[in-house]
Amino acid sequence: MNHLISIEDLDRAAIERILDRAESFAEIAGREIKKVPALRGRTVVNLFYESSTRTSSSFELAAKRLSADVVSVRSTGSSVEKGESLRDTVQTLSAYEPAAIVIRSPHAGAARLLAGWTDASVVNAGDGKHEHPTQALLDVFTLRRRLGRLDGASIWIVGDVLHSRVARSNILAFQRMGAKVTVCGPPTLLPRGIEALGCAATPTLERLGEADVVYVLRMQRERMQEAFIPSLREYAERYQIGVGRLRTGQLLMHPGPVNRGVELSADAIDSPVSLIGEQVRAGVAVRMAVLYELLVGAAAPAVAA
Amino acid sequence: MNHLISIEDLDRAAIERILDRAESFAEIAGREIKKVPALRGRTVVNLFYESSTRTSSSFELAAKRLSADVVSVRSTGSSVEKGESLRDTVQTLSAYEPAAIVIRSPHAGAARLLAGWTDASVVNAGDGKHEHPTQALLDVFTLRRRLGRLDGASIWIVGDVLHSRVARSNILAFQRMGAKVTVCGPPTLLPRGIEALGCAATPTLERLGEADVVYVLRMQRERMQEAFIPSLREYAERYQIGVGRLRTGQLLMHPGPVNRGVELSADAIDSPVSLIGEQVRAGVAVRMAVLYELLVGAAAPAVAA
Amino acid sequence: MNHLISIEDLDRAAIERILDRAESFAEIAGREIKKVPALRGRTVVNLFYESSTRTSSSFELAAKRLSADVVSVRSTGSSVEKGESLRDTVQTLSAYEPAAIVIRSPHAGAARLLAGWTDASVVNAGDGKHEHPTQALLDVFTLRRRLGRLDGASIWIVGDVLHSRVARSNILAFQRMGAKVTVCGPPTLLPRGIEALGCAATPTLERLGEADVVYVLRMQRERMQEAFIPSLREYAERYQIGVGRLRTGQLLMHPGPVNRGVELSADAIDSPVSLIGEQVRAGVAVRMAVLYELLVGAAAPAVAA
Repeated sequence: MNHLISIEDLDRAAIERILDRAESFAEIAGREIKKVPALRGRTVVNLFYESSTRTSSSFELAAKRLSADVVSVRSTGSSVEKGESLRDTVQTLSAYEPAAIVIRSPHAGAARLLAGWTDASVVNAGDGKHEHPTQALLDVFTLRRRLGRLDGASIWIVGDVLHSRVARSNILAFQRMGAKVTVCGPPTLLPRGIEALGCAATPTLERLGEADVVYVLRMQRERMQEAFIPSLREYAERYQIGVGRLRTGQLLMHPGPVNRGVELSADAIDSPVSLIGEQVRAGVAVRMAVLYELLVGAAAPAVAA
Repeated sequence: MNHLISIEDLDRAAIERILDRAESFAEIAGREIKKVPALRGRTVVNLFYESSTRTSSSFELAAKRLSADVVSVRSTGSSVEKGESLRDTVQTLSAYEPAAIVIRSPHAGAARLLAGWTDASVVNAGDGKHEHPTQALLDVFTLRRRLGRLDGASIWIVGDVLHSRVARSNILAFQRMGAKVTVCGPPTLLPRGIEALGCAATPTLERLGEADVVYVLRMQRERMQEAFIPSLREYAERYQIGVGRLRTGQLLMHPGPVNRGVELSADAIDSPVSLIGEQVRAGVAVRMAVLYELLVGAAAPAVAA
Repeated sequence: MNHLISIEDLDRAAIERILDRAESFAEIAGREIKKVPALRGRTVVNLFYESSTRTSSSFELAAKRLSADVVSVRSTGSSVEKGESLRDTVQTLSAYEPAAIVIRSPHAGAARLLAGWTDASVVNAGDGKHEHPTQALLDVFTLRRRLGRLDGASIWIVGDVLHSRVARSNILAFQRMGAKVTVCGPPTLLPRGIEALGCAATPTLERLGEADVVYVLRMQRERMQEAFIPSLREYAERYQIGVGRLRTGQLLMHPGPVNRGVELSADAIDSPVSLIGEQVRAGVAVRMAVLYELLVGAAAPAVAA
C-alpha cells in the first residue's frame, strides 16, 4: 500500500490495522511529550488548493508528532497563482524526495493523478466531490471507540449527499465495517443511483428513529443560489437535526465546520450525544496512523515513544 | 496562573518573576544554539485573526526555541474564511490538546472568551482595543534593563490612546511596577475617564520635559477618515516626537510598526535614545518566559540549555 | 564571505567549494534521514515579498534539513501589508538574531540594502530584475554533474533576457566557470549593451545548433500587454524550443515554472535531454551548501549526519 486515495483502496483488515495503530497514537497524544521519532529526517509536503483549518492543521500536526519535516504549500502566495499546472507543481515538489505528499484539491481525481507523477506516497485530503478517506477513517475510529464494533449498526447520512466527498467516503467505509447505511436529504441533493453503492435512500426524516447514528453533512450556502434548495430556512425546517428530532440512545456526528442553525441546531452540537469533538480529536491520531502505515509499513513493530 | 489575558491578572511579583526568567532566555538568545528543550513534544497553536509580522513571528520563534511544535492558523486560507465561529475553531484546535493557544483578534474580550472554551493555556496577543499584555511585559523588561527599576519614573504615553490596546496594557503594567503615567494626545483620542486607571491626562506636549520616558503610540491612518484628527499633517505638527522635542536624558519607545514622519520623525527613530530595537529584541525572550511560566510553572527550577 | 547577493561576489574557487559541498548534501538527500545537525538552534528567516513555491519551499527545506528553526514572513497576512518599510521590517527581524535572512523582493537592489541593515547573513533569493544567484549556482551544479566541467561549453540563453534576473546571474556564473554564453531573443527583449557582460547576442535561433546547452527563460504574459512582443503565438513560432529545434546531444534547461506551449513545447519538457527535474532537485542541496558556507564557513570540516 503506497497511497491512500480512496476508501476503495482499503479492505476491512487494512482499516482495522490503521485504527489499531491510531489507538496507540491517541494514547501518545495524552502524554506530555506527544511525539515519536518514526519519521525523523523525512519530509512531508502539504499541498492545499482549498482553504482548510482542520484538515491542514491536523495533517501538519500528525507529521510533526511523527518528527517529520513539514513543508506547506498553499494556493495563496505561491506559484500556484502563477498558473503553474498541478503536474509541474508536483514534479517540483517531488524533486525534494518527500516521503509523502498530502493533497487537498477542488478537482475530483486530482489525488489519483498526482500518484502517477511522483514516487512519494500520496494521501488524499479531499478531492472535489470525490473522496475524503481520512475523514471516513477518523469517523470509523470514533464510532468503533464508542460502539465497540460497527457491524449491524444503522447509520443515517443526512443532508447534501450529492456534493459531499465525505458522504461518498463514509458510505464506503461504514459498509466495509459492517454497518447499514441510509442516505437522506432533499431529492435534488441525493445522487441518482446512489443505491448502487449498497445503501438505502430516503427523502424524509420520517424513519430517522431507526438510526443508531445520525451523521449530518455540512450544507453549503452556495447550494441555495444554485437552486438545489429553496431556502436555508426551509431546508432547516425539514432536515435540521436538533435534540428534539433525536431519540434516546442515538449518536450524532458531523465532519465540521458546522453551520450552526442550518443543518444542526445549537443544542444538538453541544449535547452529550454529539461526537463532534471526539471526531476532531481522532483526526491527528488517525492521520499519524495513515502516514505510519504508508511510510513505515504494516509490518513494522509497535510504535513507542 | 493558567492564562495571560490581561495585565490585571499579574501582581508585581508575578511580573518580576516573568522578567527574571526572560533575562535568562535573553542570555540564551545570545548563544549560537538558541534553544532549550523545555516544551519538547508539546504543541503551541498560534491563532491570528489579524495580520501581524512582529507579534506572530515573535511568538512562533519563542515557542520553537522552547522546542515546542507550532501550528499557525491565520484568517487567510483557513476555515475562518468559511465563517466558522471562534468557538467552533477553538474547539477544533483544542482537540489537538495543545499546551497553549496564542490568540490575536480584532474583538475585545476574545481571549477571555477563548479561555472559557479550552483546557489549553491562553495567551492574549492583542484583542481589539482591550489589551496586549506581552507587549507591556516586554516594554517593562526593556525599561527595567535600562533604568534598573521603574519606581518613581515618569512615563508619558503619547498619541491615540483611545484605540490602543498597547496603551491600556502599558498604563497598568508601568503603574504596577511603580511608575507614574501620563497620557497625552488630542482630546478626541483620549478616552473619557482615563484618570480612573490612576494616570494623568493632558492634551498638549507642553510639560513633556517632565517625562523620563516618552512612549509614542502608532497613529492609524484610518483615524483621519473617521474624523478623530483633522489631518495627519496637523497631527504631526502638534504631536510628532522628533529629536528637537526631547530633552537630554529622555528615553524613547514605540511598539511598532512605526509610521515614519507621522507620530515619530525619522531622526528620533534612529537616535541613541530610542529603545525601539531593544523592545523588539525583548519580545522573543519575554514570550518564551510567558509560555514557560504558564506551561512549566513558577516553581520550576532555572532553565538550562 | 558573509552574504550572497550577486554571483559577482563569488570567484570560481568559491563556486566550486559550494558545489562540492552541495554534492555531499545531495548524497544526504538520498538517505532516509535527510538531515544534519549543522544549524541546530540557529534561526533562518525567509522574507518573501513575491509569491513563490519552488524558491521559498526549497530554502525552507534546506534550512530545516540543516536543523535550523525557520520563520517565514510573507507579504500576505503580515505587517508588510500595513505599509511598514523594508528597513523597519528588517530591523524587527534582526532583533531575533537570525543567522541568515533569505529575501525575495520585486525591487532590484533590495538584498544589498538589507545586508547593510542587519548582522545576519543575507541570501538573495531574487531581487527584481537584478539577480537570483542560487538559481545560477544550482544550474551550474546540474550542468557540472552532467558535463563534468563547463569549460569551453557553449550555452545559449533564449527568451526574455531583458527582464530576467536568472539570465543575469547565469551569464555571470556560466562564464566564471569557463563557458561561452550567447543570449538570444526578440531585439525588444535583449538589453542594449549586454555584450559588455562578455556574452554574444543574436536575434534568431538560426545558429542554435552551435549550443551544447539551451537554457530557456520563462516568458511572462505581461510582456505582451507591455508590447515587448506582438503575441504569445508569434513569439512561440519564432522562439519556442521544441524537440524538433534541438539537435542530438544538446541539453535543455529552464528555471521554472514553465509556460507549457509558450517558450517550451510539451514534448521538450518531458524529453530525455531535459534537465528541468534535476535543476529542481539540485535546489535544496545547493541552498543547504550556501547556508552552510555562509553560516558555518568555508574552513569547516566535511559535513556528516
